[in-house]
Amino acid sequence: MKRIHFSDVKLEAPNVEGAKKVKLRWLINEKDGAENFAMRYFEIEKGGHTPFEQHWNEQEMFILGGEGILIDKEKKEEKLKVGDVVFVPSMEWHQFVNTGTEILKFICVIPIKK
Amino acid sequence: MKRIHFSDVKLEAPNVEGAKKVKLRWLINEKDGAENFAMRYFEIEKGGHTPFEQHWNEQEMFILGGEGILIDKEKKEEKLKVGDVVFVPSMEWHQFVNTGTEILKFICVIPIKK
Repeated sequence: MKRIHFSDVKLEAPNVEGAKKVKLRWLINEKDGAENFAMRYFEIEKGGHTPFEQHWNEQEMFILGGEGILIDKEKKEEKLKVGDVVFVPSMEWHQFVNTGTEILKFICVIPIKK
Repeated sequence: MKRIHFSDVKLEAPNVEGAKKVKLRWLINEKDGAENFAMRYFEIEKGGHTPFEQHWNEQEMFILGGEGILIDKEKKEEKLKVGDVVFVPSMEWHQFVNTGTEILKFICVIPIKK
């Protein structure tokens, strides 16, 4: 069993082209014995965004703080607020943009590649 | 893609013996197309607790509100606060108890049985 506070985990820059002002913390992953999925904590600063991207791994997310928009495969925009839950299926195009004045913070869970 | 607010999801009683004052919302599961893991939102009222239990599925959790304790396989207690992250491996004994005055709220992600 592992218990830590999220703020004790190193805040890193993601290794993704097209990300702007995005940082993440790997809260739970293979190093902890997780075999199926990993939990990450994202912080997107004011004016920042993830790339408009698609990838093999689906994502399950929970918005913890800030405001932003979610851009879908048809480039339609949906507002994001605290308490919102987002599921992005495998290979679906999407982008997260911080449109607020605070840091946009969310949990993002992804499968571990086997 | 799916975006909802957690409060739009029905609050249900879990089908687990020994749970007291525990409710949950199934935020993302198979019905949404999730193939690997499901995200749930738990609420444990003041004086409530999950059973002291073990199960096949590991759990990845993030504490959103309230205060409580995590009891481990040796019955040792650890305090839980907002922002804490917990990983419970498969088959490890554990229990969550609300020891505060507010509702203890957390995200709990589990694998989907295949």
